[in-house]
Amino acid sequence: MSELPASIQNLIEELSKLPGIGRKTAARLTFYLLKQSDHDLESLGKAVLDLKANLKLCQTCWNFAESDPCKICSNTARKIDQILVVEDPLDVIAFERTNEHYGTYHVLHGIINPIEGIGPDKLTVDKLVARVKAFEGKPVEIILATNPSLEGEATASFIHQQLENIPNLKITRIARGLPVGGDLEYADEVTLSQALNGRRDY
Amino acid sequence: MSELPASIQNLIEELSKLPGIGRKTAARLTFYLLKQSDHDLESLGKAVLDLKANLKLCQTCWNFAESDPCKICSNTARKIDQILVVEDPLDVIAFERTNEHYGTYHVLHGIINPIEGIGPDKLTVDKLVARVKAFEGKPVEIILATNPSLEGEATASFIHQQLENIPNLKITRIARGLPVGGDLEYADEVTLSQALNGRRDY
Repeated sequence: MSELPASIQNLIEELSKLPGIGRKTAARLTFYLLKQSDHDLESLGKAVLDLKANLKLCQTCWNFAESDPCKICSNTARKIDQILVVEDPLDVIAFERTNEHYGTYHVLHGIINPIEGIGPDKLTVDKLVARVKAFEGKPVEIILATNPSLEGEATASFIHQQLENIPNLKITRIARGLPVGGDLEYADEVTLSQALNGRRDY
Repeated sequence: MSELPASIQNLIEELSKLPGIGRKTAARLTFYLLKQSDHDLESLGKAVLDLKANLKLCQTCWNFAESDPCKICSNTARKIDQILVVEDPLDVIAFERTNEHYGTYHVLHGIINPIEGIGPDKLTVDKLVARVKAFEGKPVEIILATNPSLEGEATASFIHQQLENIPNLKITRIARGLPVGGDLEYADEVTLSQALNGRRDY
């Protein structure tokens, strides 16, 4: 690609650093952008540059926010004694869309993954422990909502261990089972047995 | 998504304007970028903003370039009387990689597509006609290398019509047939009949 102008080459390289975007897609995106107006190009460029400006981490739930505490943590209508623990900020959005969680959140910013060298120290587990201890024996519920993957289960189990001995603390795990619209015929055995074990009175 | 900070929301919206990138991918990319260093973020943002800076259109072949004429057009080792006509700059790169074309290029910047309202006037066909006429009867070869799609064939045919009456002009079309590694069994009939009609002495 030696005949490509430097600025085109440069953007292709920058875009292909993004996850799921290979060189061909990066080249396609770059030539698409070349056809856009200067104004559109500026909007995108500035959006990237300004991404972290005015962005804080809420010192309570560790979600990205524009204020500290964040909108959710400072909302007095929400139960501060019900904390939903999720892997990352996108999970917060997913739960907010359900309109079913009236408590607060705790964002771990990752998941324990020994292969990738991510230990509990890289997550906000210690902050969660401190946050729960600050309740000083008043009743709290921690809902573990890490993904139902190997690493998600390991992380949930690790957090459970860390919190076990705190008095008046209820620790729950989101239900596993068949998703809505799922097909029994195609469900794997683990999901099916979890659906069976987690059955409820009708 | 009302609980998302404005700068995150903004980048998600900007990214989801890109072709092939939906809201979910845009959100994933945005949160990936949030985890990157300020330096990496700045590199990407600046690459977008600087994309069109110092970028010109070569007034001979109409490819994007840093100089006018571009590196290829100003290279005296290349045959200026053999012009390969392509749809867009990515096609130039594809042909350059073959190391088999010693002539120059002509970038159409699109393809005739009545459904999308792209007529010949939006392409650089008139510039190609002028460029060929400037040879004033000296021998020239135009290689039509638009894609073997419906629109590509229509564009090639239109250009052929426009150039037909120019003396000493040879117009060729890149060969159609089975691609390397292609499987006869799975080839469509049109490709197969083109492969048959285009057969050469062995």
